[in-house]
Amino acid sequence: MDVTRVDQIAIAVEDLDEALALFERAFGIRVTSRERVESDGVEEAMLDVGGVWIQLIASTRPDSPVDRFLARRGPGLHHLGLAVRSVDAALDHLRGEGVDLIDEAPRPGGGGHTVAFVHPRGTGGVLVELVEESRGRDGH
Amino acid sequence: MDVTRVDQIAIAVEDLDEALALFERAFGIRVTSRERVESDGVEEAMLDVGGVWIQLIASTRPDSPVDRFLARRGPGLHHLGLAVRSVDAALDHLRGEGVDLIDEAPRPGGGGHTVAFVHPRGTGGVLVELVEESRGRDGH
Repeated sequence: MDVTRVDQIAIAVEDLDEALALFERAFGIRVTSRERVESDGVEEAMLDVGGVWIQLIASTRPDSPVDRFLARRGPGLHHLGLAVRSVDAALDHLRGEGVDLIDEAPRPGGGGHTVAFVHPRGTGGVLVELVEESRGRDGH
Repeated sequence: MDVTRVDQIAIAVEDLDEALALFERAFGIRVTSRERVESDGVEEAMLDVGGVWIQLIASTRPDSPVDRFLARRGPGLHHLGLAVRSVDAALDHLRGEGVDLIDEAPRPGGGGHTVAFVHPRGTGGVLVELVEESRGRDGH
Protein backbone atom coordinates (compact mmCIF):
# COMPACT_ATOMS: atom_id res chain seq x y z
CA MET A 1 0.00 0.00 0.00
CA ASP A 2 1.49 3.22 -1.19
CA VAL A 3 -0.37 6.23 0.22
CA THR A 4 1.31 9.22 -1.42
CA ARG A 5 -0.60 12.11 0.14
CA VAL A 6 -3.85 13.33 1.63
CA ASP A 7 -6.01 14.12 -1.39
CA GLN A 8 -9.11 15.52 0.26
CA ILE A 9 -11.10 16.09 3.41
CA ALA A 10 -14.79 15.85 2.62
CA ILE A 11 -17.44 17.70 4.60
CA ALA A 12 -21.15 16.91 4.32
CA VAL A 13 -23.26 20.07 4.12
CA GLU A 14 -27.00 20.73 3.97
CA ASP A 15 -26.76 23.60 1.48
CA LEU A 16 -23.77 23.91 -0.84
CA ASP A 17 -24.16 27.63 -1.64
CA GLU A 18 -24.46 28.55 2.03
CA ALA A 19 -21.45 26.42 2.96
CA LEU A 20 -19.33 27.94 0.19
CA ALA A 21 -20.26 31.44 1.32
CA LEU A 22 -19.35 30.51 4.91
CA PHE A 23 -15.94 29.04 3.99
CA GLU A 24 -15.08 32.14 1.98
CA ARG A 25 -16.31 34.57 4.64
CA ALA A 26 -14.81 32.76 7.65
CA PHE A 27 -11.59 31.34 6.20
CA GLY A 28 -11.01 33.15 2.90
CA ILE A 29 -11.12 29.79 1.07
CA ARG A 30 -12.72 29.89 -2.39
CA VAL A 31 -14.20 27.21 -4.61
CA THR A 32 -12.13 25.90 -7.53
CA SER A 33 -14.74 23.71 -9.21
CA ARG A 34 -18.21 22.25 -8.76
CA GLU A 35 -19.59 19.02 -10.12
CA ARG A 36 -22.69 16.84 -9.80
CA VAL A 37 -21.86 13.14 -9.50
CA GLU A 38 -25.29 11.64 -10.21
CA SER A 39 -24.15 8.06 -9.56
CA ASP A 40 -23.36 9.03 -5.94
CA GLY A 41 -26.32 11.43 -5.56
CA VAL A 42 -24.01 14.33 -4.63
CA GLU A 43 -22.97 17.76 -5.74
CA GLU A 44 -19.32 18.41 -4.83
CA ALA A 45 -17.44 21.68 -4.53
CA MET A 46 -13.62 21.52 -4.43
CA LEU A 47 -11.65 24.13 -2.44
CA ASP A 48 -7.87 24.08 -2.82
CA VAL A 49 -6.09 24.67 0.49
CA GLY A 50 -2.35 24.62 -0.14
CA GLY A 51 -2.53 21.56 -2.40
CA VAL A 52 -5.11 19.57 -0.41
CA TRP A 53 -8.77 19.63 -1.39
CA ILE A 54 -11.48 20.49 1.04
CA GLN A 55 -14.51 18.94 -0.63
CA LEU A 56 -17.96 20.13 0.36
CA ILE A 57 -20.64 17.58 -0.53
CA ALA A 58 -24.40 18.01 -0.61
CA SER A 59 -27.04 15.44 -1.43
CA THR A 60 -28.91 15.77 -4.74
CA ARG A 61 -31.63 13.25 -3.91
CA PRO A 62 -33.45 11.77 -0.91
CA ASP A 63 -31.87 8.63 0.49
CA SER A 64 -28.45 9.13 -1.15
CA PRO A 65 -25.57 8.04 1.12
CA VAL A 66 -24.86 11.69 1.99
CA ASP A 67 -28.55 12.34 2.68
CA ARG A 68 -28.58 9.38 5.09
CA PHE A 69 -25.34 10.59 6.72
CA LEU A 70 -26.85 14.06 7.27
CA ALA A 71 -30.02 12.56 8.75
CA ARG A 72 -28.01 10.36 11.12
CA ARG A 73 -25.10 12.60 12.15
CA GLY A 74 -25.80 16.10 10.87
CA PRO A 75 -23.39 18.18 8.79
CA GLY A 76 -19.66 17.82 9.39
CA LEU A 77 -16.57 15.81 8.52
CA HIS A 78 -17.61 12.98 6.20
CA HIS A 79 -14.60 11.17 4.76
CA LEU A 80 -10.85 11.28 4.23
CA GLY A 81 -9.41 10.88 0.73
CA LEU A 82 -5.99 9.25 0.46
CA ALA A 83 -4.09 9.24 -2.83
CA VAL A 84 -2.56 5.93 -3.92
CA ARG A 85 -0.65 4.91 -7.02
CA SER A 86 -3.07 2.10 -7.82
CA VAL A 87 -6.54 1.68 -6.32
CA ASP A 88 -6.64 -1.87 -7.64
CA ALA A 89 -3.41 -2.82 -5.83
CA ALA A 90 -4.56 -1.00 -2.68
CA LEU A 91 -7.84 -2.96 -2.62
CA ASP A 92 -5.91 -6.23 -3.02
CA HIS A 93 -3.67 -5.27 -0.11
CA LEU A 94 -6.62 -4.31 2.11
CA ARG A 95 -8.49 -7.53 1.29
CA GLY A 96 -5.35 -9.44 2.23
CA GLU A 97 -5.31 -7.62 5.58
CA GLY A 98 -8.98 -8.45 6.18
CA VAL A 99 -10.09 -4.81 6.01
CA ASP A 100 -13.79 -4.36 5.10
CA LEU A 101 -14.37 -2.59 1.79
CA ILE A 102 -17.38 -0.74 0.40
CA ASP A 103 -16.19 -0.94 -3.20
CA GLU A 104 -14.68 -4.31 -4.14
CA ALA A 105 -13.32 -2.86 -7.40
CA PRO A 106 -12.08 0.56 -8.57
CA ARG A 107 -14.83 2.78 -9.99
CA PRO A 108 -15.14 6.28 -11.48
CA GLY A 109 -15.49 9.11 -8.94
CA GLY A 110 -15.63 12.91 -9.15
CA GLY A 111 -13.26 14.77 -11.48
CA GLY A 112 -12.82 11.70 -13.70
CA HIS A 113 -10.71 9.96 -11.04
CA THR A 114 -10.59 6.28 -10.22
CA VAL A 115 -11.69 5.71 -6.63
CA ALA A 116 -12.87 3.13 -4.11
CA PHE A 117 -14.29 3.49 -0.60
CA VAL A 118 -13.05 1.53 2.41
CA HIS A 119 -15.63 0.75 5.11
CA PRO A 120 -15.32 2.68 8.40
CA ARG A 121 -15.49 -0.72 10.16
CA GLY A 122 -12.05 -1.45 8.70
CA THR A 123 -10.39 1.81 9.64
CA GLY A 124 -11.41 2.63 13.21
CA GLY A 125 -14.51 4.58 12.24
CA VAL A 126 -13.16 6.65 9.34
CA LEU A 127 -14.75 6.42 5.90
CA VAL A 128 -11.69 6.40 3.60
CA GLU A 129 -11.77 7.09 -0.12
CA LEU A 130 -8.79 5.82 -2.10
CA VAL A 131 -8.09 8.14 -5.04
CA GLU A 132 -5.77 7.03 -7.82
CA GLU A 133 -2.93 9.39 -8.67
CA SER A 134 -3.23 10.69 -12.22
CA ARG A 135 -0.94 12.98 -14.13
CA GLY A 136 -2.17 16.49 -14.75
CA ARG A 137 -4.59 16.63 -11.84
CA ASP A 138 -5.86 20.24 -11.56
CA GLY A 139 -3.52 22.28 -9.49
CA HIS A 140 -1.48 19.34 -8.17
CA MET B 1 -7.85 35.38 7.36
CA ASP B 2 -4.90 33.71 5.79
CA VAL B 3 -5.26 29.94 5.76
CA THR B 4 -1.98 28.68 4.32
CA ARG B 5 -2.53 24.91 4.30
CA VAL B 6 -4.25 21.95 5.88
CA ASP B 7 -2.13 21.15 8.91
CA GLN B 8 -3.85 18.05 10.23
CA ILE B 9 -6.83 15.76 10.14
CA ALA B 10 -7.51 14.47 13.63
CA ILE B 11 -9.16 11.12 14.29
CA ALA B 12 -10.52 10.13 17.70
CA VAL B 13 -9.59 6.55 18.62
CA GLU B 14 -10.40 4.30 21.58
CA ASP B 15 -6.93 2.73 21.79
CA LEU B 16 -3.90 4.53 20.40
CA ASP B 17 -1.65 1.47 20.03
CA GLU B 18 -4.32 -0.50 18.20
CA ALA B 19 -5.09 2.42 15.89
CA LEU B 20 -1.40 2.93 15.08
CA ALA B 21 -1.02 -0.77 14.28
CA LEU B 22 -4.07 -0.60 12.03
CA PHE B 23 -2.87 2.49 10.12
CA GLU B 24 0.49 0.88 9.51
CA ARG B 25 -0.97 -2.49 8.51
CA ALA B 26 -3.79 -1.14 6.30
CA PHE B 27 -2.18 1.96 4.79
CA GLY B 28 1.56 1.67 5.44
CA ILE B 29 1.46 4.95 7.38
CA ARG B 30 3.81 5.13 10.38
CA VAL B 31 3.90 7.31 13.45
CA THR B 32 6.39 10.21 13.58
CA SER B 33 5.87 11.31 17.19
CA ARG B 34 3.68 10.77 20.23
CA GLU B 35 2.82 13.23 22.96
CA ARG B 36 0.52 13.51 25.97
CA VAL B 37 -1.17 16.91 26.21
CA GLU B 38 -2.43 16.79 29.79
CA SER B 39 -4.25 20.13 29.56
CA ASP B 40 -6.50 18.64 26.85
CA GLY B 41 -6.67 15.15 28.40
CA VAL B 42 -5.32 13.53 25.24
CA GLU B 43 -2.47 11.46 23.93
CA GLU B 44 -1.71 12.35 20.31
CA ALA B 45 0.19 10.42 17.66
CA MET B 46 1.29 12.28 14.53
CA LEU B 47 1.52 10.46 11.19
CA ASP B 48 3.07 12.36 8.29
CA VAL B 49 1.24 11.75 5.02
CA GLY B 50 2.96 13.72 2.27
CA GLY B 51 3.34 16.83 4.42
CA VAL B 52 -0.08 16.73 6.12
CA TRP B 53 -0.47 15.26 9.59
CA ILE B 54 -2.96 12.58 10.37
CA GLN B 55 -3.31 12.94 14.12
CA LEU B 56 -4.72 10.05 16.14
CA ILE B 57 -6.06 11.20 19.49
CA ALA B 58 -7.04 9.11 22.48
CA SER B 59 -8.44 10.25 25.80
CA THR B 60 -6.20 10.05 28.88
CA ARG B 61 -8.95 10.65 31.44
CA PRO B 62 -12.70 10.19 31.86
CA ASP B 63 -14.79 13.16 30.76
CA SER B 64 -12.08 14.79 28.64
CA PRO B 65 -13.50 16.41 25.47
CA VAL B 66 -12.27 13.43 23.40
CA ASP B 67 -13.77 10.96 25.90
CA ARG B 68 -17.12 12.74 25.58
CA PHE B 69 -16.82 12.77 21.78
CA LEU B 70 -16.15 9.00 21.75
CA ALA B 71 -19.12 8.35 24.05
CA ARG B 72 -21.43 10.44 21.85
CA ARG B 73 -20.26 9.61 18.31
CA GLY B 74 -17.80 6.74 18.53
CA PRO B 75 -14.34 6.73 16.97
CA GLY B 76 -13.78 8.61 13.70
CA LEU B 77 -12.97 11.98 12.18
CA HIS B 78 -12.73 14.53 15.00
CA HIS B 79 -11.38 17.85 13.76
CA LEU B 80 -9.66 19.67 10.92
CA GLY B 81 -6.51 21.67 11.59
CA LEU B 82 -5.91 24.71 9.38
CA ALA B 83 -2.59 26.55 9.46
CA VAL B 84 -2.72 30.35 9.68
CA ARG B 85 -0.02 32.99 9.95
CA SER B 86 -1.49 34.43 13.13
CA VAL B 87 -4.06 32.73 15.36
CA ASP B 88 -4.67 36.06 17.10
CA ALA B 89 -5.51 37.82 13.83
CA ALA B 90 -7.64 34.86 12.69
CA LEU B 91 -9.70 34.96 15.93
CA ASP B 92 -10.25 38.71 15.47
CA HIS B 93 -11.44 38.11 11.93
CA LEU B 94 -13.80 35.29 12.97
CA ARG B 95 -15.25 37.35 15.84
CA GLY B 96 -15.87 40.16 13.33
CA GLU B 97 -17.75 37.69 11.13
CA GLY B 98 -19.85 36.50 14.08
CA VAL B 99 -18.38 32.97 14.04
CA ASP B 100 -18.65 31.14 17.40
CA LEU B 101 -15.31 30.34 19.01
CA ILE B 102 -14.31 27.78 21.62
CA ASP B 103 -11.02 29.54 22.48
CA GLU B 104 -11.33 33.32 22.66
CA ALA B 105 -7.53 33.70 22.75
CA PRO B 106 -4.56 31.74 21.34
CA ARG B 107 -3.28 29.02 23.66
CA PRO B 108 -0.54 26.37 23.66
CA GLY B 109 -1.41 23.10 21.88
CA GLY B 110 0.48 19.93 21.00
CA GLY B 111 4.05 20.14 19.67
CA GLY B 112 4.59 23.54 21.29
CA HIS B 113 2.30 25.23 18.76
CA THR B 114 -0.05 28.13 19.29
CA VAL B 115 -3.62 27.05 18.58
CA ALA B 116 -7.29 27.94 19.05
CA PHE B 117 -10.47 25.97 18.38
CA VAL B 118 -13.44 27.32 16.43
CA HIS B 119 -16.89 26.00 17.42
CA PRO B 120 -18.60 23.59 14.99
CA ARG B 121 -21.67 25.85 15.23
CA GLY B 122 -19.66 28.48 13.36
CA THR B 123 -18.37 26.25 10.57
CA GLY B 124 -21.25 24.08 9.42
CA GLY B 125 -20.58 21.27 11.88
CA VAL B 126 -16.78 21.01 11.62
CA LEU B 127 -14.60 21.43 14.69
CA VAL B 128 -11.70 23.54 13.33
CA GLU B 129 -8.33 23.99 15.04
CA LEU B 130 -6.33 27.01 13.93
CA VAL B 131 -2.60 26.25 14.13
CA GLU B 132 -0.07 29.06 13.93
CA GLU B 133 2.69 28.65 11.35
CA SER B 134 6.08 28.43 12.98
CA ARG B 135 9.47 28.10 11.40
CA GLY B 136 11.16 24.76 11.71
CA ARG B 137 8.03 22.69 12.24
CA ASP B 138 9.05 19.00 12.17
CA GLY B 139 9.04 17.72 8.65
CA HIS B 140 7.46 20.83 7.12
